[in-house]
Amino acid sequence: MKIIEVNKRVLEKNDIIASRLNQYLHDKGIVLVNLLGTPGSGKTTLLERIFERVDFRKAAVIEGDLYTDSDAKRIEKLGVKTIQLNTCGACHLEASMIEEAIYELDLNGIKVIIIDNIGNLVCTAEFKLGEDKRIMVFSVTEGNDKPLKYPLMFQTTDILIINKMDLIRHTNFNIERFKKDVWALNPQCYIYECSAYCNEGINEILGVIVPSDK
Amino acid sequence: MKIIEVNKRVLEKNDIIASRLNQYLHDKGIVLVNLLGTPGSGKTTLLERIFERVDFRKAAVIEGDLYTDSDAKRIEKLGVKTIQLNTCGACHLEASMIEEAIYELDLNGIKVIIIDNIGNLVCTAEFKLGEDKRIMVFSVTEGNDKPLKYPLMFQTTDILIINKMDLIRHTNFNIERFKKDVWALNPQCYIYECSAYCNEGINEILGVIVPSDK
Repeated sequence: MKIIEVNKRVLEKNDIIASRLNQYLHDKGIVLVNLLGTPGSGKTTLLERIFERVDFRKAAVIEGDLYTDSDAKRIEKLGVKTIQLNTCGACHLEASMIEEAIYELDLNGIKVIIIDNIGNLVCTAEFKLGEDKRIMVFSVTEGNDKPLKYPLMFQTTDILIINKMDLIRHTNFNIERFKKDVWALNPQCYIYECSAYCNEGINEILGVIVPSDK
Repeated sequence: MKIIEVNKRVLEKNDIIASRLNQYLHDKGIVLVNLLGTPGSGKTTLLERIFERVDFRKAAVIEGDLYTDSDAKRIEKLGVKTIQLNTCGACHLEASMIEEAIYELDLNGIKVIIIDNIGNLVCTAEFKLGEDKRIMVFSVTEGNDKPLKYPLMFQTTDILIINKMDLIRHTNFNIERFKKDVWALNPQCYIYECSAYCNEGINEILGVIVPSDK
């Protein structure tokens, strides 16, 4: 079997904007969370479960999508300040887009801004968006081979939320093997388990996504 | 709610190479299939089920991955000629990579080449690889809102295989709504249903993926 390798790109310009944005929000006491995962991993459903429980007035959400504003509408319905970022087909968000979105937001009273990133395990992992932490939502139906296949995503996440735990008994997902592979790539990664669809395990991760007031 | 739009890119150079490659294979009587879908949709498992049933000697598989050769090993184990294309982190395959891979293949006796594309619903859809047909594998656990969120993928596929049908009763996946949205985007799309994991519905799609001899 032959193996052919092709080049990888650099992202220095994006990193500079990301650092500037992180500093800007830090000075205002606002935490920026980058929520990532594959399409259908359950990011938006998880946010719905979160905002049914915490004070939505202190949070804002930036919804990243290629097209449509259906996710933004789902979040806005819960009273949360929401901005829809449409990339018109582009596969990832960049720090400059987040900066633009944040300048459009009324930040009064906001303590946390959550980016509900585009469903993608590749390009989204490469682009820093100025976040204080990355949270990856991964569903057990995606298979336990994914950490080795998409290592950058798993290496760069601070927190990993394993979702759709209600379906695990119907799959061949090996959760011990999965966690072992994740920790081999990223020993500091915190792992939580939940089912956003069944509303289970949500209370345990509330503070992880929306930090509680001191 | 504000909506901000950013630019989309052009792919003319890739299209020229894709046309050239398609002509080259057409002249040799070889069909090129581009198999797409999200990470964990079940593309490689489906290929395993297929090659347990058809004459593997007339097929070759190009495995696209960022890293690892685990999928290529799964397919090679079944006796199928396999080439691993590693993009080293890049999110999509391009026609030039497929051309390079095909020049490395011994095409003697080969009737069909299947590209097991990178798990991604965005960038992969933009890049023509010289294929005669696109087949998308989509699992019911991904949610029925995806056609509207990733329209290009659904618009450009010739055949859509709905996988993980064994799990549908544990989800809120609305298959009628899903099909309606797919056909609104792509009225010519053929839709099949199966469970690669449970080995169900595979015989019905054999000829779709590996054309039978006349």
